[in-house]
Amino acid sequence: MENERAIFEMGKQSIKLPMPVYIRASASVVGKKEKEGPLGHLFDIASTDDQFGQKNWEDSESELQKQAVNKVLEKAEMKWEQIRYLFAGDLLGQGIATAFGLKDLGIPLFGLYGACSTCGEALSLGAMAIGGGFAGNVVCVTSSHFASAEKEFRFPLEYGGQRPPSSTWTVTGSGAFVLSAHPGKAPRAIITGITTGKIEDYGIHDSMNMGCAMAPAAMKAIEANLKDFGRTPSDYDRIITGDLGSVGKEALIALLKEKGINIEAVHMDCGIEMYDLQKQGVGAGGSGCGCSASILSAVLLDKLERGEWKRILFLPTGALLSKTSYNEGKNVMGIAHGVVIESLGITR
Amino acid sequence: MENERAIFEMGKQSIKLPMPVYIRASASVVGKKEKEGPLGHLFDIASTDDQFGQKNWEDSESELQKQAVNKVLEKAEMKWEQIRYLFAGDLLGQGIATAFGLKDLGIPLFGLYGACSTCGEALSLGAMAIGGGFAGNVVCVTSSHFASAEKEFRFPLEYGGQRPPSSTWTVTGSGAFVLSAHPGKAPRAIITGITTGKIEDYGIHDSMNMGCAMAPAAMKAIEANLKDFGRTPSDYDRIITGDLGSVGKEALIALLKEKGINIEAVHMDCGIEMYDLQKQGVGAGGSGCGCSASILSAVLLDKLERGEWKRILFLPTGALLSKTSYNEGKNVMGIAHGVVIESLGITR
Repeated sequence: MENERAIFEMGKQSIKLPMPVYIRASASVVGKKEKEGPLGHLFDIASTDDQFGQKNWEDSESELQKQAVNKVLEKAEMKWEQIRYLFAGDLLGQGIATAFGLKDLGIPLFGLYGACSTCGEALSLGAMAIGGGFAGNVVCVTSSHFASAEKEFRFPLEYGGQRPPSSTWTVTGSGAFVLSAHPGKAPRAIITGITTGKIEDYGIHDSMNMGCAMAPAAMKAIEANLKDFGRTPSDYDRIITGDLGSVGKEALIALLKEKGINIEAVHMDCGIEMYDLQKQGVGAGGSGCGCSASILSAVLLDKLERGEWKRILFLPTGALLSKTSYNEGKNVMGIAHGVVIESLGITR
Repeated sequence: MENERAIFEMGKQSIKLPMPVYIRASASVVGKKEKEGPLGHLFDIASTDDQFGQKNWEDSESELQKQAVNKVLEKAEMKWEQIRYLFAGDLLGQGIATAFGLKDLGIPLFGLYGACSTCGEALSLGAMAIGGGFAGNVVCVTSSHFASAEKEFRFPLEYGGQRPPSSTWTVTGSGAFVLSAHPGKAPRAIITGITTGKIEDYGIHDSMNMGCAMAPAAMKAIEANLKDFGRTPSDYDRIITGDLGSVGKEALIALLKEKGINIEAVHMDCGIEMYDLQKQGVGAGGSGCGCSASILSAVLLDKLERGEWKRILFLPTGALLSKTSYNEGKNVMGIAHGVVIESLGITR
């Protein structure tokens, strides 16, 4: 029996998907500040305020997820009955933005937590569910909200805390994706592989410099991905990290150079792209698990769909900490989950 | 291409695993009160205090997970290099017991949150990873700790808050499992199917009565499982919920009777089994995602391994809330993830 079994393991920590996993549709929802940024015109939905008509910030974030999943289903021209599983998460304790945002859908739910890397985790597990034949269609969705995250991790907005330049600004946003075994009318792209991250603890202790806390995990995941798939950085049109920001980007490039890997020509970071770093007062850039998710939907998949890019490594990065762990003097650790996404032009 | 694809969907929310997923080994670690309970002598490791040699309760819970995963690997006679993925979670905000407990293992990690149902979620996703050919071996682990949970959800112990009889006592415990495509020398049992839960919101508002908040989710998952697999309750030697406790058990039995399903003869609840409800002052029973996990390892798998039981539906139940959601006046919702586990006697 053991010999009959197909194994899709690639190298030490990657897998190659045995059958096509189409990103059949995607949707993005963002808040006011994101709308005002350089990519603002590309998102499907942008709120005029950040409350999304709700009474508290947690409900606002739930509403973000709700709008994102409804929009993605509309764009996929599908009904909820066709969706087998939800893979979803957010940054709040006990994933409450997700739980209250998705509760009325009546779809089996796998709740996830990978900090700001959760979009990569959700796409990885969703792709495995499709690739393994366990589902025909799944929805992956993640969100973050500036105000609910400040309250959860740092101080309520009313406190007016100051922020150092290395800190990042949690993106108010959500991205949702229909993954499917079937291409549908106009699939956006195809997931061909995943590289699952390990926790990396480089002794970083400054929760206001999460870019540096996550850079080692990004470095390790990129190194593993290239080795496992036998690729060089130039085999990707872009290697796109989630939310390292300008400080973390510098650290990542330097760490990889020590390993003899130069990704400068192809590196891009969603946190840097989201805002005008000079004018919008966001420190080192955007962060949160809605940052990479909304940009994947609004920007990256467009380039793949149009064939401008052939293949990317999408690598959301997460900083592992809580208010409690930080107050107890623990380090801020990192994790990064890589997803190889290809244009249908070259795989069809 | 679409026609070539095997689909393992069973009915509306279940799947049948296409290839054997062995529970190759399991391990359990508990605290002092659990050791003093009626099952105390069955756990692999029991601490003489609940601090596990650590300085704070979060670190104690991390140590619980660490001991559980090290023990399960020892029992499986495997090395960490043989483990492809970790599927892991706990009850704390941002899953910090898991992150700090497993950080040194160097294994790709999928962080999960399903409240007290997380053991079912972890086994489901782990089984899909094995069953889909994405991994040869994975470890699933969940934990909870009475003191870290009280601090996270209710009040720090020093506050001395009173507890109503319907409240449950968070189990200090962890269960870890090696799932494998290969039986090894002495596999404990085999996972043959999963039924993934949806969020059920029955308007329950009392966070001190989580049994009733979770009972509707357990009812729906049991109903779906029986329908999807074309079974009756007597096709299972036991249908085992995670932590409904004595109050939630009554609600579950009644709710299922309304649907024409009677599980009284085969129902068992891990939360009720863990303690002596008359003598140990635990209210309606035990709870937490270490409750069902440690009992699955120490009690349920023993019965399956010995062939005393042929098939069980293991159904950890979770209450979806956070301190913040509760304080903002939100309901306590439920979710339950079912795993069909069979004795190797009938499947070999």
